[in-house]
Amino acid sequence: MSVLSGIHPVAEALRAARPLDRILIAQGAGGPRLQEIIDLARRAGVPVRFEPRSALERLAGSSAHQGIVALGAARQYAEIDSLLESSLLVVLDGVEDPHNLGAIVRTAHAAGAGGIVIPERRAASVTDVVAKAAAGALEHLPVARVSNVNRALEELKRAGYWIYGLDERGAETYDRIDYAARSVIVLGGEGKGLHEQVRKHCDLLVRIPMAGKISSLNVSVAAGIVLFEWRKRAAAP
Amino acid sequence: MSVLSGIHPVAEALRAARPLDRILIAQGAGGPRLQEIIDLARRAGVPVRFEPRSALERLAGSSAHQGIVALGAARQYAEIDSLLESSLLVVLDGVEDPHNLGAIVRTAHAAGAGGIVIPERRAASVTDVVAKAAAGALEHLPVARVSNVNRALEELKRAGYWIYGLDERGAETYDRIDYAARSVIVLGGEGKGLHEQVRKHCDLLVRIPMAGKISSLNVSVAAGIVLFEWRKRAAAP
Repeated sequence: MSVLSGIHPVAEALRAARPLDRILIAQGAGGPRLQEIIDLARRAGVPVRFEPRSALERLAGSSAHQGIVALGAARQYAEIDSLLESSLLVVLDGVEDPHNLGAIVRTAHAAGAGGIVIPERRAASVTDVVAKAAAGALEHLPVARVSNVNRALEELKRAGYWIYGLDERGAETYDRIDYAARSVIVLGGEGKGLHEQVRKHCDLLVRIPMAGKISSLNVSVAAGIVLFEWRKRAAAP
Repeated sequence: MSVLSGIHPVAEALRAARPLDRILIAQGAGGPRLQEIIDLARRAGVPVRFEPRSALERLAGSSAHQGIVALGAARQYAEIDSLLESSLLVVLDGVEDPHNLGAIVRTAHAAGAGGIVIPERRAASVTDVVAKAAAGALEHLPVARVSNVNRALEELKRAGYWIYGLDERGAETYDRIDYAARSVIVLGGEGKGLHEQVRKHCDLLVRIPMAGKISSLNVSVAAGIVLFEWRKRAAAP
């Protein structure tokens, strides 16, 4: 867990869209600059709480916190370049639920993936909730955060990856594919699936054939089914 | 959503361990009998909230609610006997998180299971949270609730099922099994796995081989991996 304190550092972190878990403001503190931070935080979806000054001092390690402390994810994000050694990468196109993101990190690590790529906007970032759901896997699996998923997919293609998008309209079923030696699995957001542009960037759209009367699975369950199919085939002699 | 109102019906429902989503008590109401219900609810893990009388009247459809309304799962549970036509059943040995239970219901339905068996105690029951996470699948997949999982497994064995328990110490891997025509997959609770007695009731313990440095998956993800492996084999010519 990283701790930022003071008006300027916290405002900057919010403007740079750095992943913040929550913001604490000293009870009784106020003024236009704090109000501006509260507004920025609301727009960014970062929770704001009012706490006694003593709590802020303890967290900031000093009394020079100007009435504001932000708690951020401890993890630094990886650069996408640093992931290109891996034979399996996972790209998430807008997974919003932090429990799902955490479960996918845990699953991807257990399936042998070398990294996850997530978008900066309209998606869960790596917070404490994610770390908890990932059950320790975040310590081992690098996460890259990109401003544009389509551009990231183009970069991965240039690096020799074959891009498989999971889509209920996919032409092939996930279990009849001879996965490439360097595979990227792309998963869409809850209830929305892949964006049209992202779908066009995939080399192949694959689906999971299902019984029953509902048309989709929880995204972390779908990730498990496809990633472990990849793993089985990669581990096969 | 079923609605119960009045002191006696709500106290009875709690004593019978019926699945209640939450209990609403009128603001300002009190007395020893309401206090007894609050104590019963706390022991049963049912949330209690204080709401204006008008909210209780709206839910109860009358003002004869004696200051208490309980909201329960609309669904009736199935009897285990009614599930025995199915070639695939899922038994949960203490899954506590309602999101996981819901995701497993959704996954089991999509894999072609004909029912789920859950224990009455120390496990999530079917609430609104479960129904939401199941994304409609609860309308199609019967759930049986049993007082004793071991006895249920014995009954399923007598009915001709072969019992596969998912366990990280399992002798076989999930993808090298010739699943029986009538299969039961047993999944343990979050972070605890199968109880010793339940493990002994399984015909075969199976594991999911994993890469990486963590030893388990989210239970709904593990369910997806094993159930869809079963499905693939069942669907194969």
